[in-house]
Amino acid sequence: MSLLVVGSVAFDAIETPFGKTEKIIGGAATYICLAASYFTKPMNLVSVVGNDFLDEDINRLKERGVDVKGLQRKADEKSFFWSGKYRNDLNTRDTLVTELNVLGDFNPILPESYKDCRYLMLGNLAPTVQRQVLDQLPKRPRLVVLDTMNFWMDSTLNDLLDIVRRVDVLAINDEEARQLSGEYSLVKAARRILEMGPEYLVIKKGEHGALLFQEDHVFYAPALPLEEVFDPTGAGDSFAGGFIGYLAQTDDLSFENMKNAVVVGSAMASFCVEKFGPERLFNLRQEEISHRSRTFLEITQFDLKLM
Amino acid sequence: MSLLVVGSVAFDAIETPFGKTEKIIGGAATYICLAASYFTKPMNLVSVVGNDFLDEDINRLKERGVDVKGLQRKADEKSFFWSGKYRNDLNTRDTLVTELNVLGDFNPILPESYKDCRYLMLGNLAPTVQRQVLDQLPKRPRLVVLDTMNFWMDSTLNDLLDIVRRVDVLAINDEEARQLSGEYSLVKAARRILEMGPEYLVIKKGEHGALLFQEDHVFYAPALPLEEVFDPTGAGDSFAGGFIGYLAQTDDLSFENMKNAVVVGSAMASFCVEKFGPERLFNLRQEEISHRSRTFLEITQFDLKLM
Repeated sequence: MSLLVVGSVAFDAIETPFGKTEKIIGGAATYICLAASYFTKPMNLVSVVGNDFLDEDINRLKERGVDVKGLQRKADEKSFFWSGKYRNDLNTRDTLVTELNVLGDFNPILPESYKDCRYLMLGNLAPTVQRQVLDQLPKRPRLVVLDTMNFWMDSTLNDLLDIVRRVDVLAINDEEARQLSGEYSLVKAARRILEMGPEYLVIKKGEHGALLFQEDHVFYAPALPLEEVFDPTGAGDSFAGGFIGYLAQTDDLSFENMKNAVVVGSAMASFCVEKFGPERLFNLRQEEISHRSRTFLEITQFDLKLM
Repeated sequence: MSLLVVGSVAFDAIETPFGKTEKIIGGAATYICLAASYFTKPMNLVSVVGNDFLDEDINRLKERGVDVKGLQRKADEKSFFWSGKYRNDLNTRDTLVTELNVLGDFNPILPESYKDCRYLMLGNLAPTVQRQVLDQLPKRPRLVVLDTMNFWMDSTLNDLLDIVRRVDVLAINDEEARQLSGEYSLVKAARRILEMGPEYLVIKKGEHGALLFQEDHVFYAPALPLEEVFDPTGAGDSFAGGFIGYLAQTDDLSFENMKNAVVVGSAMASFCVEKFGPERLFNLRQEEISHRSRTFLEITQFDLKLM
């Protein structure tokens, strides 16, 4: 089924305890598209880059089946650039540089052919930009998933609440869920957030897995315990890409199938962290994805007999 | 099957964001016995208390089927006392008072009738004391589970490694696994620790669940997302009690059944944290336990179809 992805396409420079990169392709929409590309097409991208984003960079996305008609290129500006350094435990990172550049006045314009999308992923962006996307759609997609972050809760909470009200799935991390709801218990936090509008809440907990809430239903998928975590950048976006990609592929929004989407999302995130940036997501084989998803099944399934 | 539990029986004074207690019954062995009491008997306790531990306190244990022949009472001393205060997130606590008292020179003496135990739980104590227990057993129990903590890694590492070598299951938390192994990745940490002797490693991650490792097998049970966490004291010991209690009940040491033991342990821990101290563990109904274990099943099971 058709999937529209809106979010940043950018350059990142990353340092982890295991090494550092020069500017490499990054941005939420990049990770989302790459992860989703193993599950569904057409996949249409709305984003903006500058003159430093080369044809060969764009070709890497096109090779994964991403339609780039909606990718604006600004001749006189530079692409969004983020640089960060992870501490030894990989759970904390310090931002070294954030240059908004083309993202500063991003006006997301949807090509006509994108407007009938059945699945919409709104990657982390200013809530007003996310709203502009929804406002251009003549009819509501079957499913709208929203990612956001604490920055928008601090700076433009009302705009954020406005857009949260209009989506089906909100995907945030545990700290963000606590901040948005004012509740420490994630069960209570989920209840409050679901009252704000979304039908589903996904709480991403990094190495501790992910939770899915809908009404009184709860699902808890652990993260795969990994031998090596090389670079956590983009893990949350890869999760989101796998999640919505799988839903677009199966077109089944039952809670049972949502669980599977969470597992597939977790699998894609587990690939992402194994190499720098999105590198691992460019050349995955279907067997690798199936194998890893089955590993999730193995490490979590049990058959409890109570005496 | 017969279960022998060795560990502290003590008084605790606890303060959480939700209230505080006077001295109440606590200690690792108390939580272990109470949690295990719903699954197996006979259950024999080896521990030591002082003159402040009253008959009525002991009766509360006996009412749950705990044999107290091995519970020494020192007429001229006081019981081990711990007092602590949890911070707002309940994940960190500050120890206010630790009075070893009777535990300072604890000499664990096993009554003859305890010596043929089939299951042995060595709760957190000085490794030399834990060793004295093993040394008194004429034949090895079918399964020995050891709990310990970072304090012994810091202060008496060689003694600890000595006892770790002689047990079947080591149960520690994630920070302790990292400290003991010198590895950050829990997968690598597990591999190293299993090389130290135990066949199984359980890594307790509190609100993030628990991991079970054996050779190349991994199982990850999430913790139940709870509406209210009132007091985390004793959660790890309740986990251990449910874990070994279920194994003693089923007497099945296959990896599949070990998984179930982890789930049952997690269920018992989830009860424990709902009230102050071990209060919730004195009067559980079997239906409550079955119901909660089934909830674990519901929130973790999925049926992934890959296309």
